[in-house]
Amino acid sequence: MLKVSVIGTGNVAKHLYNAFLNVETVEIVQVVGRNKKALSSFGIEEKTTSDFSEIKDAADIYLIAVSDSAIPAVSQKLESKSGLVAHTSGASSIEMLSKHKAYGVFYPLQTFSKDQEIDFRKVPVCIEGSTKSNMTKLKRLGSEISESVHKVDSEQRQALHLSAVFVNNFTNHLFYIGNKICEENQLPFDLLQPLIEETVQKLKNTTPFDAQTGPARRGDQETLNSHIEQLGNLQDKEIYNLLSQSIQSTYGKKL
Amino acid sequence: MLKVSVIGTGNVAKHLYNAFLNVETVEIVQVVGRNKKALSSFGIEEKTTSDFSEIKDAADIYLIAVSDSAIPAVSQKLESKSGLVAHTSGASSIEMLSKHKAYGVFYPLQTFSKDQEIDFRKVPVCIEGSTKSNMTKLKRLGSEISESVHKVDSEQRQALHLSAVFVNNFTNHLFYIGNKICEENQLPFDLLQPLIEETVQKLKNTTPFDAQTGPARRGDQETLNSHIEQLGNLQDKEIYNLLSQSIQSTYGKKL
Repeated sequence: MLKVSVIGTGNVAKHLYNAFLNVETVEIVQVVGRNKKALSSFGIEEKTTSDFSEIKDAADIYLIAVSDSAIPAVSQKLESKSGLVAHTSGASSIEMLSKHKAYGVFYPLQTFSKDQEIDFRKVPVCIEGSTKSNMTKLKRLGSEISESVHKVDSEQRQALHLSAVFVNNFTNHLFYIGNKICEENQLPFDLLQPLIEETVQKLKNTTPFDAQTGPARRGDQETLNSHIEQLGNLQDKEIYNLLSQSIQSTYGKKL
Repeated sequence: MLKVSVIGTGNVAKHLYNAFLNVETVEIVQVVGRNKKALSSFGIEEKTTSDFSEIKDAADIYLIAVSDSAIPAVSQKLESKSGLVAHTSGASSIEMLSKHKAYGVFYPLQTFSKDQEIDFRKVPVCIEGSTKSNMTKLKRLGSEISESVHKVDSEQRQALHLSAVFVNNFTNHLFYIGNKICEENQLPFDLLQPLIEETVQKLKNTTPFDAQTGPARRGDQETLNSHIEQLGNLQDKEIYNLLSQSIQSTYGKKL
């Protein structure tokens, strides 16, 4: 049995908690966070505290699932603990926790939302440990909740996080712009759902390099001009131009 | 029985042909195209011709599935036909075919690749007809192969096509950049597949506006700076900056 305490009450903390709850080999010792309302949503009053001086010593692993900027302060509150202390951040180095005897990183590579259920078994968990035995401990914890556990060092993890911004945050923003264009033309965005799904499906059989289609890839200047003209918003025009140029330079074509 | 001839041998022509082949209520009269090698890949030698003067009069509907710039030339070759002439382009107006007695548009909103099978029943088919009866005829043809047939005028269709560039072409290019970052750091791009799938799944329960997460949305300047620094390529830096700015202006935050 692995005894785990979760520090934090946001989306990552909540989804991790739910994943641990689903397996019998992990025992939740405590959920700790300043936000009392969020704490109460865990529905385990006796195991929560908003007072960091009440953090119990009993945990094998303390998982810090708070915003990056709050990690140092939480780390300080855990200095007396003998358990392994790990943060769950993609962007922060393992060295942020180097004051602890045993430390590491436990980074679930997924976008977590409040009301969206996630099959945690499919979530890649990227782990890093300050020693081999800490690595082994985190790997064990990861394997309890996910089929996809990976040893990833800090530099690689930061690259993954950067890549995730491109494929998730920026992609979602393109969906937002696509949605806006539909709304402006009294079209349901649903019409584009099969196309969006196919865009992702293709990745299973081909690389994004080979999958590229469209006017920029073809060098169809007439369509490019007409699209720029159609866009009402200056920033959207800039995005259209920059991404089209980037596609064309990827395939060795000049605008 | 609807008698259909397909003009063109590219991906759209091929996928439409396969969809028609799957239903008993559509008869393929001919497949016409200049590219003899592509024609032979249809495997129906007796029904193909590369000689546009041999186009048969028997079709109820002629579907022009060629590149936008080739539509006028193909249209001219079909001027003597009494059947309905429709193009399959997202970007071209219906008026491109106005010399015909009966004309329209039959636009399947999907990305078609050579070796990727598509469930055509889920592909939205956007139709437009020069008259009510032409609309009805195209609607009938669409309904034979798809569960999702929509009346969409030329202006709306051009907006859909523009939106499709954002959600497909540009999104795929972001996948390309994400893939590149992974390769540069000896990481398998597969690690990001669950995240990418979840990004799309979220659209079913929430709008892209509400789904947005990440450093730009949070106004996390430290992570934004560190990401810019990590990027090796100047154009990728520009894309990162522009999309982050666009996200921030969407949510009323200033960089």
